[in-house]
Amino acid sequence: MRRMSGKVYIIGAGPGDPDLLTLKAVRALERADVVLYDRLVTAEVLKLCPPKATLIYVGKSHGEQRFQDRINSTLLNLAKENKVVVRLKGGDPFVFGRGGEEWAFLNAHGIAVEVVPGLSSALSLPSLAGIPLTYRGISASFAVIAGHRQEGAELNLAAVARVETLIILMGVNERRKIAQRLIEHGRPPDEPVAFIENGATPAERVITSELVSVAEGRVEVHPPAVWIIGKVVNLRRCLAPWGDSSLDEHSGSSLHLAMK
Amino acid sequence: MRRMSGKVYIIGAGPGDPDLLTLKAVRALERADVVLYDRLVTAEVLKLCPPKATLIYVGKSHGEQRFQDRINSTLLNLAKENKVVVRLKGGDPFVFGRGGEEWAFLNAHGIAVEVVPGLSSALSLPSLAGIPLTYRGISASFAVIAGHRQEGAELNLAAVARVETLIILMGVNERRKIAQRLIEHGRPPDEPVAFIENGATPAERVITSELVSVAEGRVEVHPPAVWIIGKVVNLRRCLAPWGDSSLDEHSGSSLHLAMK
Ligand SMILES: C[S@@+](CC[C@H](N)C(=O)[O-])C[C@H]1O[C@@H](n2cnc3c(N)ncnc32)[C@H](O)[C@@H]1O
Ligand SMILES: C[S@@+](CC[C@H](N)C(=O)[O-])C[C@H]1O[C@@H](n2cnc3c(N)ncnc32)[C@H](O)[C@@H]1O
Repeated sequence: MRRMSGKVYIIGAGPGDPDLLTLKAVRALERADVVLYDRLVTAEVLKLCPPKATLIYVGKSHGEQRFQDRINSTLLNLAKENKVVVRLKGGDPFVFGRGGEEWAFLNAHGIAVEVVPGLSSALSLPSLAGIPLTYRGISASFAVIAGHRQEGAELNLAAVARVETLIILMGVNERRKIAQRLIEHGRPPDEPVAFIENGATPAERVITSELVSVAEGRVEVHPPAVWIIGKVVNLRRCLAPWGDSSLDEHSGSSLHLAMK
Repeated sequence: MRRMSGKVYIIGAGPGDPDLLTLKAVRALERADVVLYDRLVTAEVLKLCPPKATLIYVGKSHGEQRFQDRINSTLLNLAKENKVVVRLKGGDPFVFGRGGEEWAFLNAHGIAVEVVPGLSSALSLPSLAGIPLTYRGISASFAVIAGHRQEGAELNLAAVARVETLIILMGVNERRKIAQRLIEHGRPPDEPVAFIENGATPAERVITSELVSVAEGRVEVHPPAVWIIGKVVNLRRCLAPWGDSSLDEHSGSSLHLAMK
């Protein structure tokens, strides 16, 4: 291992199930001295960190710049102390995770960054629930957008309204308005939609409905959820998700990797 | 392990580096009797398969229906023989991988399917190369489309032309026409673009240019490549990709997992 110190690993934790981390992500966690983690990183994933590691929760008040500044300076100071620093983010670090900003900040201060992509909730949760984002003859394009005003800024729905499959993150609270505007932009009111709440965790719940029902406030759903809009949602009737995986090992998995 | 037989695992191999597979994917491969794999699955990834496994290459003549029918019936017959069958696809199985069709076919014939999502080349290769797909103030949306006529059918570029970040798969051969049409649809001719050729392999090459240069046939690039269009491409100047990972173990990695 060269240049192990003075470096920050920006790592994707995937959608929740620790067995959906990559080998690289697990190795980085096992070597970590300090792990800064977000709100959506599950307790099961944190079990992959070694007992010696200091875990720092930085998930509060998402989006406020002064909290982001504090995260940046914490990362910088720890890296300067030659700690093995892991910045662990839910899903993929560069899908609305501000991972790019942290990377730019650290590089600007002379700290090397190694990136380990993760499974984004936007792509992985739909297929785990029986909804493939593309399907020949049904969808050859998909778009991922932030429904939250802060991230989505002006929330330019016109730009994505005609994409075959739409995936909206952070859109639960604004769902009525978003659905109304998508219908105004020409999406069929009876278009199928699905929300995947707490995906890839034991609390997962999948809610299917139609766009107009969301617009009229008739769909109950709570964050965090991934919202999928498009004909592919109907494929769920032909695609049975496998419930109880024989591949799960959960908290045991890190042990085997640690043995080397 | 229950119901291990008569079941097909549809698994994402990620973009090329075997250390970017998930723990679940590695476990499924280690238990496989038969692995049917695609063209974009790398030799390094195939080393994760156990010696006893039969490897079947099914990557030829991508897109022809009669080849797809043959893959479907092979999967079905092997599952009926109670083999542990893995269908291994480059990237994520449901991003232009026909994974959904195979899943529907198998379910219709009474075969259970377990899905293990993988890192799609569309999302993972850009960030590994220093191009985050979203970035506060620069991009709060991205779209992934197929540039290939067969998959993209009518190639409805109008629908995606205004999305902040565009990612085009299978678009290398049609790149001139696609770039021309995107400019017609209003994208700036000097918009930055990047192609990532053979991403996450030792042969990786990143080519950056402007949309108009692609339209005028001045950009040399060969498949397979991921094509990224948007302002986020410029972030590459501030984000240094880390070349030589201390987390790589390559062909050694499966051994540790197999020890349990
Ligand atoms: C700040 S964004 C971060 C996304 C993350 N970087 C990713 O790639 O999945 C947070 C949003 O991701 C979605 N999300 C992330 N994990 C989720 C999960 N396990 N279940 C449902 N939605 C999830 C929700 O839409 C949530 O509001
Ligand atoms: C049939 S699509 C399959 C995509 C795959 N399911 C995924 O999620 O990455 C094949 C296209 O993916 C892209 N691709 C896949 N792996 C790649 C790699 N290692 N380097 C560059 N492009 C890749 C190329 O655009 C290629 O034409």
